[in-house]
Amino acid sequence: MSGNSFGRSFVVTSFGESHGPAIGGIVDGCPPGLPLSEADLQGDLDRRAPGKSRHTTQRRESDQVRILSGVFEGETTGAPIGLLIENQDQRSKDYSEIAAQFRPGHADYSYTMKYGRRDYRGGGRSSARETAIRVAAGGVAKVALRRLAQIEVRGFLSQLGPIKLPVPGDAAFSWEQVEQNPFFCGGAAEVAQLEAYMDELRKSGDSIGAEVSVIATGLPPGLGEPIFDRLDADIAHALMSINAVKGVEIGAGFASIAQHGTEHRDEMTPAGFLSNNAGGVLGGISTGQDIVARLALKPTSSIRLAGRTVDITGAATEVITKGRHDPCVGIRATPIAEAMLALVLADHLLRHRAQNAQVVPPLAPIPAQAP
Amino acid sequence: MSGNSFGRSFVVTSFGESHGPAIGGIVDGCPPGLPLSEADLQGDLDRRAPGKSRHTTQRRESDQVRILSGVFEGETTGAPIGLLIENQDQRSKDYSEIAAQFRPGHADYSYTMKYGRRDYRGGGRSSARETAIRVAAGGVAKVALRRLAQIEVRGFLSQLGPIKLPVPGDAAFSWEQVEQNPFFCGGAAEVAQLEAYMDELRKSGDSIGAEVSVIATGLPPGLGEPIFDRLDADIAHALMSINAVKGVEIGAGFASIAQHGTEHRDEMTPAGFLSNNAGGVLGGISTGQDIVARLALKPTSSIRLAGRTVDITGAATEVITKGRHDPCVGIRATPIAEAMLALVLADHLLRHRAQNAQVVPPLAPIPAQAP
Amino acid sequence: MSGNSFGRSFVVTSFGESHGPAIGGIVDGCPPGLPLSEADLQGDLDRRAPGKSRHTTQRRESDQVRILSGVFEGETTGAPIGLLIENQDQRSKDYSEIAAQFRPGHADYSYTMKYGRRDYRGGGRSSARETAIRVAAGGVAKVALRRLAQIEVRGFLSQLGPIKLPVPGDAAFSWEQVEQNPFFCGGAAEVAQLEAYMDELRKSGDSIGAEVSVIATGLPPGLGEPIFDRLDADIAHALMSINAVKGVEIGAGFASIAQHGTEHRDEMTPAGFLSNNAGGVLGGISTGQDIVARLALKPTSSIRLAGRTVDITGAATEVITKGRHDPCVGIRATPIAEAMLALVLADHLLRHRAQNAQVVPPLAPIPAQAP
Amino acid sequence: MSGNSFGRSFVVTSFGESHGPAIGGIVDGCPPGLPLSEADLQGDLDRRAPGKSRHTTQRRESDQVRILSGVFEGETTGAPIGLLIENQDQRSKDYSEIAAQFRPGHADYSYTMKYGRRDYRGGGRSSARETAIRVAAGGVAKVALRRLAQIEVRGFLSQLGPIKLPVPGDAAFSWEQVEQNPFFCGGAAEVAQLEAYMDELRKSGDSIGAEVSVIATGLPPGLGEPIFDRLDADIAHALMSINAVKGVEIGAGFASIAQHGTEHRDEMTPAGFLSNNAGGVLGGISTGQDIVARLALKPTSSIRLAGRTVDITGAATEVITKGRHDPCVGIRATPIAEAMLALVLADHLLRHRAQNAQVVPPLAPIPAQAP
Repeated sequence: MSGNSFGRSFVVTSFGESHGPAIGGIVDGCPPGLPLSEADLQGDLDRRAPGKSRHTTQRRESDQVRILSGVFEGETTGAPIGLLIENQDQRSKDYSEIAAQFRPGHADYSYTMKYGRRDYRGGGRSSARETAIRVAAGGVAKVALRRLAQIEVRGFLSQLGPIKLPVPGDAAFSWEQVEQNPFFCGGAAEVAQLEAYMDELRKSGDSIGAEVSVIATGLPPGLGEPIFDRLDADIAHALMSINAVKGVEIGAGFASIAQHGTEHRDEMTPAGFLSNNAGGVLGGISTGQDIVARLALKPTSSIRLAGRTVDITGAATEVITKGRHDPCVGIRATPIAEAMLALVLADHLLRHRAQNAQVVPPLAPIPAQAP
Repeated sequence: MSGNSFGRSFVVTSFGESHGPAIGGIVDGCPPGLPLSEADLQGDLDRRAPGKSRHTTQRRESDQVRILSGVFEGETTGAPIGLLIENQDQRSKDYSEIAAQFRPGHADYSYTMKYGRRDYRGGGRSSARETAIRVAAGGVAKVALRRLAQIEVRGFLSQLGPIKLPVPGDAAFSWEQVEQNPFFCGGAAEVAQLEAYMDELRKSGDSIGAEVSVIATGLPPGLGEPIFDRLDADIAHALMSINAVKGVEIGAGFASIAQHGTEHRDEMTPAGFLSNNAGGVLGGISTGQDIVARLALKPTSSIRLAGRTVDITGAATEVITKGRHDPCVGIRATPIAEAMLALVLADHLLRHRAQNAQVVPPLAPIPAQAP
Repeated sequence: MSGNSFGRSFVVTSFGESHGPAIGGIVDGCPPGLPLSEADLQGDLDRRAPGKSRHTTQRRESDQVRILSGVFEGETTGAPIGLLIENQDQRSKDYSEIAAQFRPGHADYSYTMKYGRRDYRGGGRSSARETAIRVAAGGVAKVALRRLAQIEVRGFLSQLGPIKLPVPGDAAFSWEQVEQNPFFCGGAAEVAQLEAYMDELRKSGDSIGAEVSVIATGLPPGLGEPIFDRLDADIAHALMSINAVKGVEIGAGFASIAQHGTEHRDEMTPAGFLSNNAGGVLGGISTGQDIVARLALKPTSSIRLAGRTVDITGAATEVITKGRHDPCVGIRATPIAEAMLALVLADHLLRHRAQNAQVVPPLAPIPAQAP
Repeated sequence: MSGNSFGRSFVVTSFGESHGPAIGGIVDGCPPGLPLSEADLQGDLDRRAPGKSRHTTQRRESDQVRILSGVFEGETTGAPIGLLIENQDQRSKDYSEIAAQFRPGHADYSYTMKYGRRDYRGGGRSSARETAIRVAAGGVAKVALRRLAQIEVRGFLSQLGPIKLPVPGDAAFSWEQVEQNPFFCGGAAEVAQLEAYMDELRKSGDSIGAEVSVIATGLPPGLGEPIFDRLDADIAHALMSINAVKGVEIGAGFASIAQHGTEHRDEMTPAGFLSNNAGGVLGGISTGQDIVARLALKPTSSIRLAGRTVDITGAATEVITKGRHDPCVGIRATPIAEAMLALVLADHLLRHRAQNAQVVPPLAPIPAQAP
């Protein structure tokens, strides 16, 4: 298995460049008998799609996914599921200038040093365009999680630059609201502030970072494996693999540093856990509490403000990124983060069945949360 | 490959429980011709070993590692390297009380629900005892990194509870100092403060979190793979797999959220990079800058202050952890984090050679840092 | 990694059913800088394509492969190579009768028992149609083997039913002849006999088995890994994974059973090896001699002579396979076997570089064969 | 995962050289709750052990296996199972002469060219000594197969040099007899002939090949995966990975070449299959019939009759192998072949549960064989 595959039992492999004819992927290991159609995947693809508000890139891609295999008479067959999305709005001419330059903060330099060359059209393989296939494959994983267990994965924007946004538990937060604005913001009141901030940012020509949160509910206890493939380690792998992510935390995360044991340890009662600093994972294995993870996304490096760099001969030059870019890549990252979390959980659900299908635990699960 | 293996080309697989007869592991894929002896591994094992100051667990383990295979006439042969450490100071009686209880914040409950049982002696497989094998295997990786490239991996304690500690670049920081105190603290002045803090903590019976930083220097550009096995994603996987870790960040990490693109993007000049917000990775591939990562460790949950929990029948009870425990697991985590980072880099060094041994990049590498 | 992927460093993953809209695959890990176009793959696809003589199925597929990614300006980039072949001549109606029956000798029953259902259109995933993607991916591997080493992989039909055919070393054999008849037979004189045999067979409504041989030349010594991933073990895996294959042998193969050690061991002289009973592999690692493997293919089970079977309710019934089928699946298997051998060798070439790129052997390779 | 691991869900990794201090392995992914002790593994180790009759090597190894982890209170815990066998009878001086020579038919040359060196003591990693760990790990797999399904794996010697031996179905064959002679021969009458043949062979100083058969009974239909990880492809991989194996066949195997479809296809009736040319696998997936596989083993190359070879400088020389060797390595291969088949089946049993635990097939399995 090479770097473009993810998972051990529920495996996605992807291909495709920003400005090639198409991007695509294969989901292998999906259980048979799950109702699945392209419509099941299109919803999340539309949530991720560019060009839907003035706050994201104006590249227009309908991102219509086709399922080429693995589904028969409306149900998965157990055979690998081929996914294909044609690229449509490829303005390669936008990028021709940068063929000989390395954009700072981009993969141009590191790809060139690794491979001796790069496909410079729109970032090639390093473009976030490939995340559309992650979202489609994650859509298959969501169906599997829902059908085989009652697991739901959802995400939202929890911070945009300096603006902290409502989170579940806050009165201002609602999951319905998350789907009603282009920011995936859970608070209604904050949307105007976000719009004003982004309008100002766009005028400045600069970009900004963001934080996205993802939550999985309905997990049984027992998913994950000891030592290296801990559930949280695989989640960290999955989320850090998303373009522009620079940090990942689970549960109390970095706040754990200053916590005492008496505060951090989540006490248990027959009525349920009393807190969730663990973020749903102990010893790398799910407890049945919600999985709670956050990811930090850097500001996009594609900005129209000039930056110092070197060219392909090693000489000093300056770069101004034209083209169409997201001033805050974090905004569209919510469905991508959901997809990656769903892929990890689907994989571990199957891995757990492989080893432990015959297990009868000595007690019934403790409720995720004491009332 | 199951959950107790890590890596694709340079692979470690581990076994062993806290109170079994021995722990061990196998390093597979190690290049031949590297000078290697047990002494090369023992140094880091001694740095990690318990019982070396009053601030860590008083369990005494000499942690003498034996190399059982893969080395002949003082050099690696290319055959798998078998590693074995006998357990010595196993006071299983310390733990017998907790056989029927789930310690809050521990893996007792999640393991039991997964496997239908657990080895309760000292935490069994979920004990941090297994990290000794990671350190031994990481020692092999360090030798490989040094011999095949000029890569060095080092770590230090960057925060203990509320106390922020010096980092490289600070006048107060020196790498020599890191090795001269039991905290892996890079500042001489802070050691007394840490000792006082820990003495106070130990008296209270509580525990505290910490932050460890790891840095790799001397990397060539080009290590890492696009999309899922990005170098930073594999580092996140590796570091989050360490017991008690709740968050991982690379470069600017969570601070990226509030950064602008003009600030975050690391500009390049022929004399070198002008900053390192990326932490040495762009597009998942090393740039030749230092890899900089931080991990947040939760406070240990094994404390002698009573906590509410349930027993194996699901009934409410209270738990007091006796036995010998680290009041701050972060303190001994530095060599473990180094080992995990070394394992990732050795793996990607080999993976890079597999695909790209024949590549001649069009330009010489840019210096890691402009003077 | 699940069952539809093959390889560790040079990895192919495939999808697609006989009567879905398309079949496809992804080649991951391919080294960058290799000249590659669709024309490089089309030659072998045409060699495998159905409908080219009266001796193979009359299904007509142009099998035009599209490269969707991983190639830029005529060279591989190191990014995954997406491959797609549209299905064209899908006469699903031919197969509707067998939806409720299990054809003996086919995967109908085993798939149904595994997945609880099956895509019965033309055999679905179990159809040999998927081998077109193996051939396309193997074409990429052939380019890599040629460019990175001087390895060539070729095959031929060595037996058809009772008719033993010439092999290299026989005066009657020539590689040019292999490409000049629809049987991949290396002897000119035997072609008329084969045609007559096949015409007779077709009239009878029955089918027949065959043996295909594959040979790789130009290997350096050193490819392969000890113990489980021996080069010959991976070759056996690869060849046995081809539809209808029931046996695989390397070098002297089953004839070794009755050989003495003095006869079997291939003596060495400075001028080269004196024989090749090993088939180019000792201890699982290539010696630099030709890799020689043979595979036994069963007669196709899709014949128009009635056979006893059960239906999907478990009741007794009789089946007559209509549709268009190969009376000897072995005939078209030659390019498939070549592709699988090429995939194994490309994978091991990269794996070898991963671990041993720095190795300098103490002596120059011995010639493959003493003159 | 590197070359010293086998399996995806039920994974064994091994280490150790012929004349190092110990050999060992790790079984990962084993389901919890299986009764397991060292005695469960020792039986097969004793069947494989050298020095038990005058017809095998006179090296004496008690091959006492220790289970170092993964078992608690007599049952597997789900944690990895560490296995260790100390080497005892290491007469390294026997081998010192061959340090500078390449024994023909051995891995000496190929290892040296791959790694630039080799551990020449008793063949080092390439020695069949490592198969003891396969047998121990296979013992764990046998327990899992028996407990989780009702699968039994057994083997016997089916041919020694020119002497064909009884097989199941022959009146002369009995499974009890297999365990009552040092040849694993199923016929009582043939034992004297085998002893005479071997005595003569030993006098001659030469060696001879053999064929071993392995059979698995009690499989449910449905084990295996389409395309590359077909059950038969993984069996071929497993069996071909055993030292000295040059060929593998399933069911009718190479005899399929000359069969017609009407003869080969195994017709089905409600009372069961009418034949088993498939050897229990159709489309790569088990049918519920017995798995029947045969492996061809070459004559050992370690013989005391001089052979031409080259030395480590590439110069011509002659080699006479002293030391203690099996004149027919096939004799002791039966438990090794059983172990490898058991490992494949245990792996696929778990892989099947991962994807298909929820499947309800539309009909009850057909009996393996019609009465």
